[in-house]
Amino acid sequence: MSLSVCVIGAGRIGRIHASNFAALAGVTVKYIVDPVAEAAEALASGVGATVASLETALADPDVTGVAICSATSTHADLIMRAAAAGKAIFCEKPVALDMDVTKQAVQAVADAGVPLFLAFNRRFDPQFAALKRGIDEGAVGTVEMVQITSRDPAPPPVSYIGLSGGLFKDMMIHDLDMARWVLGEEPTEVSASASCLVDPAIGEAGDVDSAVVTLKTASGRLCQISNSRRASYGYDQRLEVHGSDGLLQLGNVLENTVRHFGAGGGQDGKLLHFFLERYAAAYKAEAEHFRDVMAGTATPAVSGQDGVMALRLAEAAAESLATGRTVKLG
Amino acid sequence: MSLSVCVIGAGRIGRIHASNFAALAGVTVKYIVDPVAEAAEALASGVGATVASLETALADPDVTGVAICSATSTHADLIMRAAAAGKAIFCEKPVALDMDVTKQAVQAVADAGVPLFLAFNRRFDPQFAALKRGIDEGAVGTVEMVQITSRDPAPPPVSYIGLSGGLFKDMMIHDLDMARWVLGEEPTEVSASASCLVDPAIGEAGDVDSAVVTLKTASGRLCQISNSRRASYGYDQRLEVHGSDGLLQLGNVLENTVRHFGAGGGQDGKLLHFFLERYAAAYKAEAEHFRDVMAGTATPAVSGQDGVMALRLAEAAAESLATGRTVKLG
Amino acid sequence: MSLSVCVIGAGRIGRIHASNFAALAGVTVKYIVDPVAEAAEALASGVGATVASLETALADPDVTGVAICSATSTHADLIMRAAAAGKAIFCEKPVALDMDVTKQAVQAVADAGVPLFLAFNRRFDPQFAALKRGIDEGAVGTVEMVQITSRDPAPPPVSYIGLSGGLFKDMMIHDLDMARWVLGEEPTEVSASASCLVDPAIGEAGDVDSAVVTLKTASGRLCQISNSRRASYGYDQRLEVHGSDGLLQLGNVLENTVRHFGAGGGQDGKLLHFFLERYAAAYKAEAEHFRDVMAGTATPAVSGQDGVMALRLAEAAAESLATGRTVKLG
Amino acid sequence: MSLSVCVIGAGRIGRIHASNFAALAGVTVKYIVDPVAEAAEALASGVGATVASLETALADPDVTGVAICSATSTHADLIMRAAAAGKAIFCEKPVALDMDVTKQAVQAVADAGVPLFLAFNRRFDPQFAALKRGIDEGAVGTVEMVQITSRDPAPPPVSYIGLSGGLFKDMMIHDLDMARWVLGEEPTEVSASASCLVDPAIGEAGDVDSAVVTLKTASGRLCQISNSRRASYGYDQRLEVHGSDGLLQLGNVLENTVRHFGAGGGQDGKLLHFFLERYAAAYKAEAEHFRDVMAGTATPAVSGQDGVMALRLAEAAAESLATGRTVKLG
Repeated sequence: MSLSVCVIGAGRIGRIHASNFAALAGVTVKYIVDPVAEAAEALASGVGATVASLETALADPDVTGVAICSATSTHADLIMRAAAAGKAIFCEKPVALDMDVTKQAVQAVADAGVPLFLAFNRRFDPQFAALKRGIDEGAVGTVEMVQITSRDPAPPPVSYIGLSGGLFKDMMIHDLDMARWVLGEEPTEVSASASCLVDPAIGEAGDVDSAVVTLKTASGRLCQISNSRRASYGYDQRLEVHGSDGLLQLGNVLENTVRHFGAGGGQDGKLLHFFLERYAAAYKAEAEHFRDVMAGTATPAVSGQDGVMALRLAEAAAESLATGRTVKLG
Repeated sequence: MSLSVCVIGAGRIGRIHASNFAALAGVTVKYIVDPVAEAAEALASGVGATVASLETALADPDVTGVAICSATSTHADLIMRAAAAGKAIFCEKPVALDMDVTKQAVQAVADAGVPLFLAFNRRFDPQFAALKRGIDEGAVGTVEMVQITSRDPAPPPVSYIGLSGGLFKDMMIHDLDMARWVLGEEPTEVSASASCLVDPAIGEAGDVDSAVVTLKTASGRLCQISNSRRASYGYDQRLEVHGSDGLLQLGNVLENTVRHFGAGGGQDGKLLHFFLERYAAAYKAEAEHFRDVMAGTATPAVSGQDGVMALRLAEAAAESLATGRTVKLG
Repeated sequence: MSLSVCVIGAGRIGRIHASNFAALAGVTVKYIVDPVAEAAEALASGVGATVASLETALADPDVTGVAICSATSTHADLIMRAAAAGKAIFCEKPVALDMDVTKQAVQAVADAGVPLFLAFNRRFDPQFAALKRGIDEGAVGTVEMVQITSRDPAPPPVSYIGLSGGLFKDMMIHDLDMARWVLGEEPTEVSASASCLVDPAIGEAGDVDSAVVTLKTASGRLCQISNSRRASYGYDQRLEVHGSDGLLQLGNVLENTVRHFGAGGGQDGKLLHFFLERYAAAYKAEAEHFRDVMAGTATPAVSGQDGVMALRLAEAAAESLATGRTVKLG
Repeated sequence: MSLSVCVIGAGRIGRIHASNFAALAGVTVKYIVDPVAEAAEALASGVGATVASLETALADPDVTGVAICSATSTHADLIMRAAAAGKAIFCEKPVALDMDVTKQAVQAVADAGVPLFLAFNRRFDPQFAALKRGIDEGAVGTVEMVQITSRDPAPPPVSYIGLSGGLFKDMMIHDLDMARWVLGEEPTEVSASASCLVDPAIGEAGDVDSAVVTLKTASGRLCQISNSRRASYGYDQRLEVHGSDGLLQLGNVLENTVRHFGAGGGQDGKLLHFFLERYAAAYKAEAEHFRDVMAGTATPAVSGQDGVMALRLAEAAAESLATGRTVKLG
């Protein structure tokens, strides 16, 4: 019997997840929910689904799970409604930009006893997965120092900046989740420094575009994160882990492995452009994981609580930036 | 309306092609043909097809194309029968190990006026395609010297060696096709040298396991090919093109981009194991190409005549090895 | 006419500098000064010099310059005596571990009107020089974010830790100088975090062995530094500069460029072992620079004031670590 | 007591060797011999030597060795005169372009019982030495297939081509020596193919500018060599050895390790320009080796007989090119 999914949100990321679900053996996309009728229809016809209202979709007992791919501001409410309807929940990060709202949604999920899978894409990327596997297999011994570099090819429209929750919650949240994942211990101290170097309009909108954060765990493990909203050379996604017995280095993924040598020296292929290209395999793996969650053969690899913890670190970073002090977490 | 394919051969490579066709929008795998009923049934049920006899499949006017994935010795006959039935033909390389049989099959295709796509996988690999695009865009200027390295992780069973047609027709044929593709001119001179270094049993079976070939074109472009039936470090697939204005180097593809540094120095991930892993994307692209051929929006990127030319070079290499002379082609 | 140098200190680094001076056309090592007679004699005979007392050497009008290669605690006094004698001064970093003493020595040099060249080796390394040249030529546009990784292969003896002035003054001082050099602006904010992860005995001696620092300049440029007293994979010396138009990455230097491929994947040569090997070319370039300083054709590329500034950053890092606050510099 | 050398030839390579000898502890350059008085005087004054006639230099019992750095056409005669004078001989490759002359000179050396060190620079390069050490330590198991790529940044003046002895004797001779060195067995079969692709004037001068050669040893080991007189990307010097248990790859040496990332992708530093830069360390090592030969603590690592063998392979390659046949060597 097929597992039936309702995809909420027919925008760019919704289209990716819907296509990936539709391509999975044993999974059907039954409904597309989106207030923009044209987008909903287009996506529904592409994946063999029907456009429906949220009420219809949640009321349909055939629907095993819902995939929340709509605007961030709608996530928490949709989680709570899906939880009330007893559906397995796939939610694009974050649950919410507000901690209280986030906790409320996570609590509702717990009360309903449904699984919530928060889709932090990097955990499902084959490269990051290989790095994590290396750590778990002892390739670096005890983890001591982590360095995470994450830069976007270009900043989002300034109009988005005000809605984004700020760089720490919007962009660095991925790195903070990675830090928790590879450090193997919860950070207990957070300090931040940041600037507006890329575009003054971002500063005028109240945000920063270049930021660094230092994390420290109870046993003293250290992590440095570097973020920029713009890298002239493309989407820069690197992570390295130094431990007692070695170093693991995750590099960027290139469009191809062909090198060109001319008068100037050897040149590699370009970096994969941005997250849609770089994490295409991760989105597929997320769909597979949620299929298993719906089937009851897996529990969510990333939970609502993971979302709470990452948000907490992002808020601590913002606080450190404002106060010039290291923020200690209990 | 969907294009309907009949896949002949339910072995390893048949399963790959059948799955790729089945996953394509606008393509249906209608029939699986294989004398081994169990294999045919398993594959048919996996891709939503029906097991049928060759006669039934070829007689069905719904069938647009046939994909020949059976043993090499059956290819030519199947091509001729499919041609007679007016089907578009996808055929795993080679057409045949014998030149006369090959030409006969290619002629039959021409007489029938059907398209024949000979599936040389490397032409559809994204890496090789990027290299070719670079050449075509002038990245190296005029092509002058080509080096092709191709080594398998391990030799095939000795029992296969006798059926294989020998290293030149069985293995180097891919490199000879690549040479034609990137040299931009037909080779007119061929010389070969070879040894049995990997396994004496291969020599006892009348073949070599380590071979090098030099090609020269009419304008003097030079190409060197190096083949071994065994590389301790995995499936080695490299090609480089030196021209008047630069060098393009196609390297091996690794399992992942994570590097490990320990006391011995930096270590990359492993090479992708063998052709099924290394050319997975190529097989998908072949399916897409054949879809377009069936739809009439593309002509075969690799034709039966390309098969004839590659075979001719393989035969010339074998002749050069036997005579110790450079063989000149008209 | 030959420039005549007196080398003070016949230990490991003194021997290197003495040999490099002796190999320079136009430079003679006239005296070796060291209380350990045996070491002084051995070095003097190797470079064609005479063992002498400091008084004799400083009183000799033939001596153009002195190279101070003795223990750190003696540097400031020797600088002041050499300055009083009117000699050009080459001094191994640092001037002193104490800020007042450092300033006093620098002032004495200024009063005497002699040149003082503080030998920060990385500024003279061909790799770091190429990076700096790239920045100066605009390869990254405006500098925005700098990342410096510096790890020793193994910690010094614990007995040394107590005399070292601590990780920030002893080890990170090189990185702080690099930060000033490549940021192109003075850091105005410093924050630090650190742990004892490598050896508890280092912690018992009152120091840390793993430390990270964040610097920020007036215009908002950011720099992250990562230090460890031990890297299982060798002497790790990397620096990268992200700017508005590109990224420059300085990697480690390997023993050789030969790669080995085996069952585990491709493996590079080892990293050069430690500073004596890694910065051998830098020490030669320092000698050449000091020759030019003595000859009056160059002014010191690194001055006593550079030493003051680096020490100031190291002290601010220690203060930030103690207080958990970002330290602002005027 | 110092070993005393007479350097014959004050051109580019003579200046390099003279400087390297002069910088060695225990070695003095006593005489410079060159018919061009101005060049001889300039070099002599730079290294503390005296200009002298050949007769004077050879008659001086203080002279332990002579370094022959003059034009190729003078080598054999000078070797024979130096041998007659009982001097240790350092000779730039080749002994001569003619086999009979070469053998005559080698015989004269044998008769005189003096050591002759033929300076094939690559054997003394740290990179090639590391590769050879790897082979000798078993890193690839049994050697099976060797690939040598050697390309100059630009062709020599056409006026030189006629004097050069042709590409095989002038340029590929280095690769043929390398092949002998790493194959671990003498080649017994040689086949060649070549073209004039770089400059038609080279063809008009009777030579080729692009050439490939295949070698085979008695046990079946195979070697491919690729030469071009021009590479747009610089001096290309690579070698790889595939064996039963692994692959060793010697790559090009770059000006520096700094990588630049811009919109086009990651770019390495340039290749070292040409042999003077690429093999600077090799020339130093050659001088050290000849010092040991003169001192009697070493026998020449490359003998006159090695020169005979390399010349024999070069002649066989030329013969194969002319006849279109594989040439068998006894």
